[in-house]
Formats: sequence, structure tokens, C-alpha cells
Amino acid sequence: MLSPEDIAAAEDRIRPFTHRTPLVFSPTFSAMTGCSVYLKLETLQKAGSFKIRGATNAILLQRSLIGPDGVVAASAGNHAQGVALAARSAGVRATIVMPVGSSVAKQEATRGYGAEVVLAGRNLQESVRYARMLEDQGLFFIHPYDDEGVIAGAGTIGSEILEEITTPDVVIVPVGGGGLIAGIATAMNGERRNTRIIGVQSGACDAAYRAFTSGVHETVIPKRSIADGIAVPVAGELPLRLIRRYVDEMYTVTEEEMIDAILLLLERKRLVVEGAGATPLALLLSGRISLPQGSVVVLVISGGNIDLPLLQRVIRQAQIRRDRVMTISVVLDDKPGSLADLLQVIAGAGGNILDIAQKREEKDLHPTEVQVEVEVETRGGLHQQRIRGDILSAGYR
Amino acid sequence: MLSPEDIAAAEDRIRPFTHRTPLVFSPTFSAMTGCSVYLKLETLQKAGSFKIRGATNAILLQRSLIGPDGVVAASAGNHAQGVALAARSAGVRATIVMPVGSSVAKQEATRGYGAEVVLAGRNLQESVRYARMLEDQGLFFIHPYDDEGVIAGAGTIGSEILEEITTPDVVIVPVGGGGLIAGIATAMNGERRNTRIIGVQSGACDAAYRAFTSGVHETVIPKRSIADGIAVPVAGELPLRLIRRYVDEMYTVTEEEMIDAILLLLERKRLVVEGAGATPLALLLSGRISLPQGSVVVLVISGGNIDLPLLQRVIRQAQIRRDRVMTISVVLDDKPGSLADLLQVIAGAGGNILDIAQKREEKDLHPTEVQVEVEVETRGGLHQQRIRGDILSAGYR
Repeated sequence: MLSPEDIAAAEDRIRPFTHRTPLVFSPTFSAMTGCSVYLKLETLQKAGSFKIRGATNAILLQRSLIGPDGVVAASAGNHAQGVALAARSAGVRATIVMPVGSSVAKQEATRGYGAEVVLAGRNLQESVRYARMLEDQGLFFIHPYDDEGVIAGAGTIGSEILEEITTPDVVIVPVGGGGLIAGIATAMNGERRNTRIIGVQSGACDAAYRAFTSGVHETVIPKRSIADGIAVPVAGELPLRLIRRYVDEMYTVTEEEMIDAILLLLERKRLVVEGAGATPLALLLSGRISLPQGSVVVLVISGGNIDLPLLQRVIRQAQIRRDRVMTISVVLDDKPGSLADLLQVIAGAGGNILDIAQKREEKDLHPTEVQVEVEVETRGGLHQQRIRGDILSAGYR
Repeated sequence: MLSPEDIAAAEDRIRPFTHRTPLVFSPTFSAMTGCSVYLKLETLQKAGSFKIRGATNAILLQRSLIGPDGVVAASAGNHAQGVALAARSAGVRATIVMPVGSSVAKQEATRGYGAEVVLAGRNLQESVRYARMLEDQGLFFIHPYDDEGVIAGAGTIGSEILEEITTPDVVIVPVGGGGLIAGIATAMNGERRNTRIIGVQSGACDAAYRAFTSGVHETVIPKRSIADGIAVPVAGELPLRLIRRYVDEMYTVTEEEMIDAILLLLERKRLVVEGAGATPLALLLSGRISLPQGSVVVLVISGGNIDLPLLQRVIRQAQIRRDRVMTISVVLDDKPGSLADLLQVIAGAGGNILDIAQKREEKDLHPTEVQVEVEVETRGGLHQQRIRGDILSAGYR
């Protein structure tokens, strides 16, 4: 079974090819929770996620078994980029199989790291099947989590944390296939330290959570989730064995909790974090875990590879939910000056106008009227009430 | 005149109240330039910018002169938040004067740090005048840059860099009023080290650049700029004296260069950076400075306080300019299935559909026709040509 020594060896092995990422204190999240909250920023890792640690360790460990055709992996996301970059560092070829319709940005990033990208399969399982075919033709297959070398590489995050904080009270880690938390838990508790290791999954895909809590290790059907990086329908065999041994608790979080956490990290820490990477903060703020006041808590922010169009939708939705954006629909006389008058009222109430759309074809509209939809930036719910009140008292409907 | 010893003293003074921010290596920007590029991440500083360093040092230095009514500052941005938080740490009251119409998010952040926010003045100059009135009533005025304590506090960034890299070849620093670069240059070259200190301003507001290059110290009229944090119409007296002594070169960058740099930092480093903070990368990538291959370059990423609505517009514009988003306008027969057929053609060419709008009221449109505008995520210019080609060969116009 994997030991802390394997992880120490992995740390030496991958050091020249990976970043030691910053562990930063967050006054904001500390104040929100009464704990001392630190963030381990794998968003600043090479290729934007922790994945390069495991891929680099696995490739270097098994370098002598890798032929001239190099390695193959199947992934729609971070593992693709991690393997591509790890292979380039090690001087071996990489073929990455991605599902047809994968995000254009992630395809481009993977190509940018020097890998050949093959689009095959309608979903990840089909891509894996294709990659396994290439394995039969002589390529060396790199599994995203069910592999000791990959787990040991991910575990180097745990040893880096311990080098900065000797005994954190709690470490919260995102869980998909389970490789990341298995490695970190082994690094931190393999030597009988006393840190609570807590795993967090998206409620939309909770195979490892179920295996941990009910003991039933089976495949789930993932629902739609912004945490695509941990939407793994079945937990790995090797990780589960380590998780059962070293992990203390597992929880799930909702899509709304993740969206709010992404926005908080963006606004308060100026960090772009993907859904999976935001799950530890989402869990911390959910109140679902019991934490003595003053606990030293480390959140593993596992990656930042969120597509820009998705990020934009997340920002928008979270702003609306926090009453930071409102849409006001008003019927006006369709004549010069009436729109300017309305905007004056909104500006007078301190609202900042973001967008305006006019509709003349609505069902109940008189031909001399126009319906105007104004999108306004606001300070919160009370401010929105005030703006609505001002508009009504100015005689609009 | 300010000395490296003052900065060392400031470092000890502010250490308990500020973060020592990470200095991270960037493989991407290094590969793009043939240099070793490091980023000093003041986006991870408390309140999201370097400003708290100077404010904290100034307040602690002059603590005995500050009365029960506390300190006052005028700012629409980072200085507001820096002073608010520094005052709270030092246990003094803070009043921040902001121009009417200041960004709602920045007002809220400043209140969140415990300051009283007063909206007065139509622009920053008028707010300063109001703050000076409050100074006459006994509040202690904290200048954003024309103050030795503030400059020494900002200079601690320079000493932190030197603790990690003994002699960087080049340090690039954003310049507004000049306090930040004056402090860093003093810290780094005050002891006859040999680092090239380069300042960068937005071309939209280049008072310090002009004073440095032509020697004429005068007020400019700022043009509209996304780098609002450095849109300072006149450079400070004290900073200019230090800049003339210790800074080697000054340049300006364009709005387009800043927008591209913001997007690169977002995509490649997963960092939210404001316009001012992106100017060093914008300058590095402009090719405007001569850099021997292999130079060790430090970019001071001064802050990350960009409003979310502005960030969203920046992301969108940069994506369009890099051919990552295209809008296709097609005229269709207004009947069931015709839109589905068009989307099939776009999907077949590998385009990812982001948004669809339909117009039935265009001037040249036949009543049986509808004009459809489809927004598509693409891989780049060649990909866009291919999609356009496929649509035309499918018989659309």
C-alpha cells in the first residue's frame, strides 16, 4: 500500500517539472467562519490544476516502460492538459483522446502543450475505450486516478502543506475519482498525524461519497454540474482503499453553493477557480461541518480551468442571486425623451445601468407604447426595493 | 530623502497587518518572451491591491498625530479600501470620500472594511477638496502617493522581491501618481544594486511618463481608460524626485494591450487583474523594451480590483478580437426547422453556439424571412473561415 515515503520520493521526482504552489491565508473566509482559513492554490500550478503532479510522477516512474509512441490518456479536462505537459517535460509523445464536442479552449490548451488531440467518443467512457484501443497498439495508458504513481504525485500537495503548517486541524479536498484526496490523506495521516481529512463531492455526481458513507461501491449517472472536473461516475479502486483508511468525513455540495463559492473566490481573492476547485469553500461555508472556533483549515483549491463562456454565466447568475443585478421591465410611451426620463429616475436612486433592451411586439402592448427592460447594477435587496419604489412613485408601471 | 533603511523599517512595521505576497514563475510568459518571468501577486494582498502597505505604514508612523475622528482619504478605488482596512487594523476611524457615481462594488467593499463612505464631488479632484475640508476639521489626511510613509510602505514590495531573487535584471512597475515605483526603486537601487527599474503608464493618462521623459511636470487630462487605478492626472512631487534618481525607463501602453494582458492573466494564470495591474505584462509583450535573452524579469501585478461588469466586457471584447467568438448573421425562411438546420451546419464545422437572437423587423427582410444572429465560440481565424465557408456552401446568405 502507498506510504508517505512514496510521496516524499514523488516530491523529489517531480520538483523540477512542477510548481510548489502558494498556501495563502484568507482574512475574509477566516472572518466568515471564525477559523484560520488557508488556500492551497493549485490554480497557480502548471496547466492550471494539480493534475500535472500525478501525471509527471507516473510518467517518470514508468519511463522505461514507455515506447516511442509515448503515452495516451482520455480526458475532457485537466488530466488532458496535465498529461500533455508532463509528457513534454519528460520528452515523450502524448496522445489525448477527448470526447467529440469537448470545449474548444481545452482542446487548444492541450494542443498548445504539444499533445496530439484525437476527438473520439460521445462521452468520456467512449473516449476511454478508444484510448484503451491505442494502449493495445503499444501506447502507455495513464489513468487519471486509479494508479499508485498518480496518487503519490497528487499527494505531494499534502507534504507541501505540512512543510508550511505542521498540524492543520482540517484539510478539505475535492473528490472525483478519489486520487487527489487519497494522496493527500496518505501524506498527512500516513504518519499518524492528527489532521481531519474531509472530502467533498458535487451532489450531482457522488459515487465516492456513496462508497464512503454506505460502503456500496457502484457507478452513478452524473447529473449536469459545473464541477465537470469531478463528475466521475465511479470512484477508483486504489483511491477508495486509501480513503477508507485515512479520510475522516465526506460531504456533498449543491450547484448553488459552488456557484457562490466561485464568485466569492473571484471577488474576494481575485482567483479564477473551476467548479471542482470551489467545492472546499462551498462546503466550509455551508455550515455542514462542525468546526471548533479557531480551527486551522486548509482548502485545496484544485484547479482553475473553467471555460470563459461558463465563467461569464456563473458571474451573471451569482450577481442576480445576490441582488447585485436586477432587471426592471417598464412600459413607456414610445416617444422621444421617455426613456431618458426613466433612466434619470434609476440614476437618481443610485442604480448603475448595465444594459437596455426595447420590445415593441409584446402581446398586451398598445401600438403607441414600448416595453423597456433595463438591467441595473445594485447594492443589494434593500437598494433594489428603493429603486423599484422610486420608479413606481414616478408613475411608471 | 527616503532610504532603503526606511523601507526595511516599514517592512517590520506593517508585517503583522499585511500579507507577504507570492512571487510566482510563469512558464507561459517566459516562453513567450525568452526571459524568466516572475509575477509579484499583489492581487493576493489584503483588500486586493498593494495600497494597504502604504496606508498601514503611514498610519502607524503617524499614529500619535491622529485624533479621535481618525483619518480621511479621497479615492474611487484601491486607496479607499487600503486606507479603510489599514485604519481598522490600527484601531482608528476612517472616512473615505468617493465621487458620486463611484462603482457600487467598491463602495460596498470600502464599507465592508469598516470605513464611513461619503459620496461627494463629481470627480476625484472634487472629492479630494471635500476630504481636505474634513482635514481642516481635524481628520488626518492620508495622501495616496505624495507621502514618505506611503512610499516606504509600497517599497516593501521591492524588499520582498530581493529576499527571493537577489538581483533581478528587470522589474516592471505600474505608475499612476508614482508612489509604488518610487518605493520599489528606492528599495532595489538605493543600495547601488543593478536592476533596471521600468515604469509603465496607460497612454490615456501619462503625466508621470511625460514628466520623466520631457522633464515637464504638469497636469494632463485623462482619457477614458480601463486602468482607472493609475489614471492620475499629475505625478506626485516626492515620487518624481525618487523616480528621476532611481528609475531607468518609462513607457506607455494602449488600451488594447491592457485588455489582452488582462485576458492572458485570466486564462493562463487564472488571476483576476485590474487594468493598472496588467500594464507590466502589456508592456513586456509589446516588444517596446529591449531584453537580452534569459533576462530575469519581475512584473509587479499591483492589484485585482476590477468590477465584475467591466471584467465581463473585457473578456468578451478580447475573445472577439482573438477570433474566439464570432457573430454570424443569416437570413432564414421563417418556418419550423430552418434554424435547426443552420445550427446543424455550424455544429458540423466544430463551432460551439453561445447565443442566438432572431430579428423579424430588419429593413430588407421579406415578411416570410427572419434574420438570425448566432454567436459562436471558435478556435481562431482559420476556424471562423471554415465555418463561414460551410454556411455559404450550404446555400445560406
